Amino acid sequence: MSFETRYELYRAYFERELGNACAAMEIVPDVLRESMQYSLLAGGKRIRPILFLSCLELLGCNYQEELPLAVAIESIHTYSLIHDDLPAIDNDDLRRGRPSNHVVYGEANAILAGDGLLSYAMELLLLEAGRDMGHLKAAQALAHAAGVYGMVAGQSADLLFENKEGSEADLLFIHTNKTGRMIAAPLIMASRIAGKQEQALSAFGETLGLLFQLTDDLLDGTAKLGKTPGKDSEEGKFTALKIYGEKRANDLCGSYQQSCHRLLDTVEGDTQFLHGMVDLVARRDH
Amino acid sequence: MSFETRYELYRAYFERELGNACAAMEIVPDVLRESMQYSLLAGGKRIRPILFLSCLELLGCNYQEELPLAVAIESIHTYSLIHDDLPAIDNDDLRRGRPSNHVVYGEANAILAGDGLLSYAMELLLLEAGRDMGHLKAAQALAHAAGVYGMVAGQSADLLFENKEGSEADLLFIHTNKTGRMIAAPLIMASRIAGKQEQALSAFGETLGLLFQLTDDLLDGTAKLGKTPGKDSEEGKFTALKIYGEKRANDLCGSYQQSCHRLLDTVEGDTQFLHGMVDLVARRDH
Repeated sequence: MSFETRYELYRAYFERELGNACAAMEIVPDVLRESMQYSLLAGGKRIRPILFLSCLELLGCNYQEELPLAVAIESIHTYSLIHDDLPAIDNDDLRRGRPSNHVVYGEANAILAGDGLLSYAMELLLLEAGRDMGHLKAAQALAHAAGVYGMVAGQSADLLFENKEGSEADLLFIHTNKTGRMIAAPLIMASRIAGKQEQALSAFGETLGLLFQLTDDLLDGTAKLGKTPGKDSEEGKFTALKIYGEKRANDLCGSYQQSCHRLLDTVEGDTQFLHGMVDLVARRDH
Repeated sequence: MSFETRYELYRAYFERELGNACAAMEIVPDVLRESMQYSLLAGGKRIRPILFLSCLELLGCNYQEELPLAVAIESIHTYSLIHDDLPAIDNDDLRRGRPSNHVVYGEANAILAGDGLLSYAMELLLLEAGRDMGHLKAAQALAHAAGVYGMVAGQSADLLFENKEGSEADLLFIHTNKTGRMIAAPLIMASRIAGKQEQALSAFGETLGLLFQLTDDLLDGTAKLGKTPGKDSEEGKFTALKIYGEKRANDLCGSYQQSCHRLLDTVEGDTQFLHGMVDLVARRDH
């Protein structure tokens, strides 16, 4: 089976189950449920849940039983996008080619949609945590990655360096935390559920996270991500382009990509699909 | 020991431990840690953690071992205040007589401070959930109360009825969810840790929550809560005063207060302090 076919299978499986989860939401008022679902069902590459499901399969687990955690991962990712797009933060009117959550539902509802998605994920995590120690530890890994020692810290640092010069270490802090932790988390979670290979998968995940954010910076710089045309929300951003310039940033991407493949070679099992994920992350503008 | 002395003892104990929790936070950037702590350490009556600690004592538990859950309760309450005060939502410049979080740190940082506090609570809950089944169920109760079937839904409904006429049922939905769930949660949590009296304490908690929000509406209406002077952020609000008028709303307060005392009489153990909490909630402008 080709990488693309397998990717689409994971994605279709995840999206069907995400649709079921949404259909089961008995949330009122309607505007809260609809605004949450508007962003949750907006498509996207579903990279984090697909990393999770494929890594579970690599480790010999039945990934069909781990859906709530996949939904929790995507809910947390989605809340972060909604809050990130708010006028007070990145002020992005477009997300994945559609109007941002706050453009459709207003700022107040968008803040609550984000709060709602994070809270929804928290409930899912606490339900799954009751299954066994592996699931508890997996849920803890996601909470830690998303929180004040992870993604929220990265977001805060990202704000701090807006229109300001930072060092290479500052950039690495932002990349590691803002994006990296939530890319590594699905792999760590899978390893904890399986009860094996956490160290190797965690090392791979961290580097994959850095590769992800670096390509993001490069894509933002060359404006291929479907952002608002003519809008310069990225202009004041502190990105890899500012620190390295385009040539060195591209070289670094290649070097991270190689590191990812090498780290993956230390993982036991059929890693072919994850090797494909590395290349997808590295070239996801195509 | 008088009610007041016991209240201050619980409060002092909680605040000392909250201070320790804050001191142990190794959160960077500084602005994230400081903005979280600014609101967390802003004082307030600490009603929710005190309900939790006193209820644990009533049930014969060692409340000194349950501090992380008390901190989680207050963190979630605090995040909701920060987001509630944002310009896009209630636009309140003052909170507890001090400038609101966004006035001091800016809107973007205030959004992240709220996200950070909710995420911090999520991490605490997932750590405590690992202790035993009672703690897992207690953590689930708090997550449920705070989430899209609780507080977030209440906030969303509150927005929906701004500058709009609603029914008595709408008002009850808002009161039950926006405030009631987070007042009842500490009592449900204590009962789950102790493994007894959940039904009686939950019924008491729900009514106490309604009493709390009703007195809140009355206080807001008569502007005693230290809100921004001359600012009419409460003007378009859909409150009990609009549905009942002041006289009937006051009567209803008295009736909820009586119900609370009656429901408390069905709880086994020394309920004297909780009876005092009912009266404190009913008259907390004094």
